[in-house]
Amino acid sequence: MNKDLQISTRGNEMPESPIRKLTPLAEKAENDGVFIYKLNIGQPDLPSPQKALKALKNIDREILEYSPSQGYASLRKALVNYYDRYQIKLSPDDIIITCGGSEAVLFAFMSCLNPGDEIILTEPAYANYMSFAISAGAVIRSVVTTIEEGFSLPKINDFEKLINEKTKAILICNPNNPTGYLYTQKEMNQLRDIVKKYNLYLFSDEVYREFIYTGSPYISAMHLEGLQDNVILIDSVSKRYSECGIRIGALITKNRRVKETVMKFCQARLSPPLIGQLIAEASIEGTEQYSRDVYESYLERRKVLIDGINKIPGCYTPIPMGAFYTMATLPVEDTEKFCEWCLKKFYWKDEFTPQGMKGETIMMAPGKGFYTNPEKGKNEVRLAYVLEKQKIKRALFILERALESYNQLYSPVCTIS
Amino acid sequence: MNKDLQISTRGNEMPESPIRKLTPLAEKAENDGVFIYKLNIGQPDLPSPQKALKALKNIDREILEYSPSQGYASLRKALVNYYDRYQIKLSPDDIIITCGGSEAVLFAFMSCLNPGDEIILTEPAYANYMSFAISAGAVIRSVVTTIEEGFSLPKINDFEKLINEKTKAILICNPNNPTGYLYTQKEMNQLRDIVKKYNLYLFSDEVYREFIYTGSPYISAMHLEGLQDNVILIDSVSKRYSECGIRIGALITKNRRVKETVMKFCQARLSPPLIGQLIAEASIEGTEQYSRDVYESYLERRKVLIDGINKIPGCYTPIPMGAFYTMATLPVEDTEKFCEWCLKKFYWKDEFTPQGMKGETIMMAPGKGFYTNPEKGKNEVRLAYVLEKQKIKRALFILERALESYNQLYSPVCTIS
Repeated sequence: MNKDLQISTRGNEMPESPIRKLTPLAEKAENDGVFIYKLNIGQPDLPSPQKALKALKNIDREILEYSPSQGYASLRKALVNYYDRYQIKLSPDDIIITCGGSEAVLFAFMSCLNPGDEIILTEPAYANYMSFAISAGAVIRSVVTTIEEGFSLPKINDFEKLINEKTKAILICNPNNPTGYLYTQKEMNQLRDIVKKYNLYLFSDEVYREFIYTGSPYISAMHLEGLQDNVILIDSVSKRYSECGIRIGALITKNRRVKETVMKFCQARLSPPLIGQLIAEASIEGTEQYSRDVYESYLERRKVLIDGINKIPGCYTPIPMGAFYTMATLPVEDTEKFCEWCLKKFYWKDEFTPQGMKGETIMMAPGKGFYTNPEKGKNEVRLAYVLEKQKIKRALFILERALESYNQLYSPVCTIS
Repeated sequence: MNKDLQISTRGNEMPESPIRKLTPLAEKAENDGVFIYKLNIGQPDLPSPQKALKALKNIDREILEYSPSQGYASLRKALVNYYDRYQIKLSPDDIIITCGGSEAVLFAFMSCLNPGDEIILTEPAYANYMSFAISAGAVIRSVVTTIEEGFSLPKINDFEKLINEKTKAILICNPNNPTGYLYTQKEMNQLRDIVKKYNLYLFSDEVYREFIYTGSPYISAMHLEGLQDNVILIDSVSKRYSECGIRIGALITKNRRVKETVMKFCQARLSPPLIGQLIAEASIEGTEQYSRDVYESYLERRKVLIDGINKIPGCYTPIPMGAFYTMATLPVEDTEKFCEWCLKKFYWKDEFTPQGMKGETIMMAPGKGFYTNPEKGKNEVRLAYVLEKQKIKRALFILERALESYNQLYSPVCTIS
């Protein structure tokens, strides 16, 4: 019985993160003295709120002890007030603090889905939903949205076609990562009807709630009538307060049995991060001006990025109405190869290159990692507009140069016959 | 197709934590003004190292950003030096920083085990192994160790009897939570032979490495020859630096494929806690005196707890050689009922009761949650000696009073016939 040590099937199936898989190439380039404009990852360059940083400095504990598995009651109470601003009425008991929004997604899947159960979502999609589905043994069924139609929600008919005995949930990310799409009231109502009709779970990832560029009031899944037991809200302080590193998210639901089940997974992992909770709590109140400033920055950055992309020959991106990402098509056959090439070979240098650097390049997330069908998204990239305006402009200048060089090198040459 | 919203099978199967499930009763008692001696949970009352607390105060970052999915290289390098003190030779690449030891266990199971695969471990066992096994769909097969034999490792023959086609791993916790048992060199060699013979994974949870009361050098699974690809070490800074709340652990292996697979799970959850990593890194070097002081405290506390328990009529516990827990038998039929009763009904009050408190009681972890067989451990509790000596003494005094009262109330009355 001397068999080989095996990796699990799900371990083999787990995708590498399209956002992070090029990191080793980037590290190598950085070690070689190359400056990289990182448009690949939703890591804002904006400082966290001063109030939160001050709270961090003032932590006065002698024992860095476990916190409750559900998270501190004081943080959950602060969140109740936060949601109240969005007309989402909660009690602290409806909120479970998690280690980032990531853990909230995992625990939602683990608690609600059996192996083989299906979740419907729209593609392109945040790639880690797929990873968490594989972790839980669940199956993603996807409705493809297209860049040509601005990634709008396909007709409800397309959803219904996918519903079968195995369907247990619909997952939405609104505003959307990676497309920046924001669902309309009409679309949300359609979703509500279908969730009700088939009595499905509705997992709603709303971590970009703060970043909506339409002026319309935000429509949360929690606002939809009659879905009290169906909705599981995924949230996080990461993006709204530039606190990705503290790993504080939340799973929110009014479904008592789901809450009780999620709590068992929470007890097993003992507690969410202590220091992160203290920082998150300090970030919620008294940061209104901070949030307005951040919003203004993203509004500007969006304009610079979107206008800039659409000006580059062969590139196109629709205007994202929320979040801080956009999907763009590039005039190359395979963006993964192009993104690798930029990190490995294309180091631009001119008089504006930062002193002492060997060159500059750009890092982007290849589009195909955001689709389950490996043939989709091959000429797309996801770009995050999380850098300051001047840096976005410079990154776009370099992208344009890179595309020119790449296509001179690798495009089929026209020969006159 | 208007079916009910279902909870997943694994969600239903997930046990409640025996360590944390009585928390709501404790909270209620505390709100009523009762002082509780918490022997249920491994939450040391010792302060974290001054050096770590100072590092926390001096964190000077403007952006609380994502860290690398594998954890900071500087922390991993510091850990390489730490393990070197224990003659465990590693490179930073062998170390993956996780959100507590908990996440390391989960990712090890997720990466190495398929649904239905079996893990052999000894019971009583840390209850959350069961939770993580259920999360991964794996099956726990257990070899029972007994309080009468001081929880020593059963003959290797008992292990071999459980091995079949489905067996993929052996899991040990050494020194052991909840028993405090420390494996001998001979036992570790036996384990090595069986792991080799059947080519199994050996998951070795060594988070209590610092707490060994025998004077003998520590034997890590990493010391066992010829198991390079088999051993997956689970570790955490939580216990050794009284930093349970910062959620920093590690998964360590030299098996390249396991590392690559675990990294995919790490990428999905993005990154381990940023602030925790900064604190953990500051805790590793220059804290030798702290560790010696902590060790001395536990040595004393162990003596107070073990001697004290064995003095109470009807109670018994063997001497734990490591960690800071012990399993004890109490003279009651069902310790779960007794533990609940202590929190709900038994509030002791005398002239030593803290001022203004309504009374005092004790919280313990009922033993049966540490066994898979629901008939085992019913008259046992797990006790953690993580409180200062005087508090342990007082807790034991109250335990003795509680046992007297409880047995007067609920024991069958002898009648003279």
